[in-house]
Amino acid sequence: MKAKLITLIAILLFQNVAIMAQNPTLGTIFNRTSVRSYSDKPVSVETLTLLVKAGMAAPTGMNRQPWEFLVIQDKDVMAKLAADLPYAKMLKEAQAAIIVIGNPEKSDYWYLDCSAATENILLAAHSLGLGAVWTAGYPYESNMNKIATALSIPLPYRPLCLIPIGYPKGENKPKDKWNPAKLHLNNW
Amino acid sequence: MKAKLITLIAILLFQNVAIMAQNPTLGTIFNRTSVRSYSDKPVSVETLTLLVKAGMAAPTGMNRQPWEFLVIQDKDVMAKLAADLPYAKMLKEAQAAIIVIGNPEKSDYWYLDCSAATENILLAAHSLGLGAVWTAGYPYESNMNKIATALSIPLPYRPLCLIPIGYPKGENKPKDKWNPAKLHLNNW
Repeated sequence: MKAKLITLIAILLFQNVAIMAQNPTLGTIFNRTSVRSYSDKPVSVETLTLLVKAGMAAPTGMNRQPWEFLVIQDKDVMAKLAADLPYAKMLKEAQAAIIVIGNPEKSDYWYLDCSAATENILLAAHSLGLGAVWTAGYPYESNMNKIATALSIPLPYRPLCLIPIGYPKGENKPKDKWNPAKLHLNNW
Repeated sequence: MKAKLITLIAILLFQNVAIMAQNPTLGTIFNRTSVRSYSDKPVSVETLTLLVKAGMAAPTGMNRQPWEFLVIQDKDVMAKLAADLPYAKMLKEAQAAIIVIGNPEKSDYWYLDCSAATENILLAAHSLGLGAVWTAGYPYESNMNKIATALSIPLPYRPLCLIPIGYPKGENKPKDKWNPAKLHLNNW
């Protein structure tokens, strides 16, 4: 019984490894995790621009692209935001950050399009060996106002999130969130 | 002048090709596009499950995972939804669909987490040679109710989107949405 279980687990592990070896995109999707601790190694503006390009490749409703992206490399600004924002302390040791900003005048559901763009940035960062984490602007008025004030982001633009970025320090194991009970086939 | 311009375009094209060859994840991100026309080739339930697994690998606020996923392979249900929903006509020829469903009782911003999950599914589909497209449930009450009724999705669960899936028919060129004017450095 125990031997059977070990064999089954081994097969499942091997299946996942085999899928990821054949398909690096799936490898990135399954291995990406939120990274909150970064080394001193700098991140170039070219790399940050590539991450923003990845963001702009996301789909948007009616192709309205209701977004803007702000890259921060200024350590003083990052230290101030780390102190001001409730869940962005890791920003103090990040090498850079990307703010994903929506334009509510271009789309009523800018925050959905900007979420897809954010996921593209997180995946692109992981694929380049970088660590990153989504910290919330929207829907918190207080967070959005602090970010907007620190970086002179004018209305109607609203920051969906702030993504600290750096090369990971230490090990970052992905969570296994697969839960077959949440998969429904053909009907609820 | 013209020769210089052609050289510059060639260099930029080569850079993109070189980046994508080295980094298949970026290749997937940049080449993914909304696919609305599908061949008769069936999509297996194993492949659809893998797409849902990719969805469940997305990050969620406070790790609440406020989501459920419903896979449809029933052609009658898909034909009915294709007729009922305003922007889902392509569902009539799709081989399957995935509905990404949020639980507002688990998170106030379930639709952000579910948008990241949706982007994972769209990227995973592209990486497997499949075509897919995000069609809106949320924020449209009418769409959400039609989808929920057709598939017996109970309250409080709400469908963020319905993703028709199939092997692409014809060519599907990605849009180039890169716009350097939307990239801000260090300040707005």
